[in-house]
Amino acid sequence: MFKASYIQFAPVFGNQEKNIKKLDILIDNSKQADLVVIPELANSGYNFSSRKEAFSLAEEIGKSEFVEFLESKAKKHNTFIVSGINEKENDKLFNTSILIGPNGFMGKYRKIHLFMNEKDIFEKGNSGLPVFDIVFCKLGMLVCFDYLFPEIWRILALKGSDIICHPSNFITQYGQKVVPVHAIINRIFTITANRIGTEKDLTFTGRSIISNPFGEIITQASGDEEIGFADIDISLSRNKMITERNHVFNDRQTEDYGEII
Amino acid sequence: MFKASYIQFAPVFGNQEKNIKKLDILIDNSKQADLVVIPELANSGYNFSSRKEAFSLAEEIGKSEFVEFLESKAKKHNTFIVSGINEKENDKLFNTSILIGPNGFMGKYRKIHLFMNEKDIFEKGNSGLPVFDIVFCKLGMLVCFDYLFPEIWRILALKGSDIICHPSNFITQYGQKVVPVHAIINRIFTITANRIGTEKDLTFTGRSIISNPFGEIITQASGDEEIGFADIDISLSRNKMITERNHVFNDRQTEDYGEII
Repeated sequence: MFKASYIQFAPVFGNQEKNIKKLDILIDNSKQADLVVIPELANSGYNFSSRKEAFSLAEEIGKSEFVEFLESKAKKHNTFIVSGINEKENDKLFNTSILIGPNGFMGKYRKIHLFMNEKDIFEKGNSGLPVFDIVFCKLGMLVCFDYLFPEIWRILALKGSDIICHPSNFITQYGQKVVPVHAIINRIFTITANRIGTEKDLTFTGRSIISNPFGEIITQASGDEEIGFADIDISLSRNKMITERNHVFNDRQTEDYGEII
Repeated sequence: MFKASYIQFAPVFGNQEKNIKKLDILIDNSKQADLVVIPELANSGYNFSSRKEAFSLAEEIGKSEFVEFLESKAKKHNTFIVSGINEKENDKLFNTSILIGPNGFMGKYRKIHLFMNEKDIFEKGNSGLPVFDIVFCKLGMLVCFDYLFPEIWRILALKGSDIICHPSNFITQYGQKVVPVHAIINRIFTITANRIGTEKDLTFTGRSIISNPFGEIITQASGDEEIGFADIDISLSRNKMITERNHVFNDRQTEDYGEII
């Protein structure tokens, strides 16, 4: 059994320094968690007016003050942190989720399904769909609009994820409805850390959510700043038998699935 | 716009004659519908004690009193009917959904994901995943436990289904929670016609449901015998743009989906 949490807050647009100061307090307040999930693009905010503006607010992972800050917090609290980050690599931008452990940066997932004007700003992710073993569980990451594509939740689950961490900046309530069903279908835990607040014409919907492998909501946030905690028992995500004769993966009839590609 | 309906009732186990008499009344009561969906195994009931018993209660489609009865009702009311049927072909049994139109039998889907002891009774379906054009919409069929496998809902949607008809004999409430999310993900209508009643140790959960492409429940049954109706506007399932820049199918990043097979 371990403790997971989401941090739901409103990043200040274009002000990484303020976001670090805010998260410094919020991560301290979630220090009893073994795994902390922070929303999408938590360093920069979301609603860029141009690619140029987004670029000016991005960081390279190896030279990032934001990553170093998260590393220091993960080390201090002996915890794992998943966070969205506006990531640049040379002249490219990615909408990325990073995994930080007590020993530092562990890996990243770069979002592959881009929403609306993100298509003008970010490259489609090129990281594939990695799964990380963090000792007490196996963990995959997806970002926000990825919620709509069951294929990648399935793939991360087939690759052994007990839990999928899902930094988000939802502006609708569809994601909160859909993600717990991915949990049922794949017998996994899910943590959606959504943001709140308003940036220009966009208002973010909060209601961050942790679901168990039966699609039951273990904890869900309101629309305010909030930290949510849940105890995670991975014996539930490791047991893929949904009846004594039905296994969520082995019962798949993949010879009939060819047309999905 | 056309009108769809489900018929939720309790088939009498092992008594096709009584089930036909019952459906004769219920289909008359849903005659204003252009499309009527009837639960899984509506001719025979569900909880067979042996394969032999199931075989004795099955019919061949070309020689079936049950199919002829549905053909006569579809002709009389100028409607389309989808129904579950315990189907035999030579020495094999299939858990099948059939489509009947005003001009007679149109086609079938044989269930590929078998639940619990169905594995001792039925062959895995060999019909593939056909989609039928019934003039006012394109229609796919799935049966009960298929609800848990997002791959096949996706494939039927990719093949053009506006609506997926889903005869069921649910003994849990998971299906009713999951299916409307398949509707959201694929921007389609869904009709789950579930049964009620008890057969030996199994109690069926009713709560039949019609969902629109936004996952909104247009109509849902109680746990009693009930016919539900919904107006279906296929302009909603034909519009796959979920934002002005996001298309539920074209935004799929299939080059990353290979591991799903």
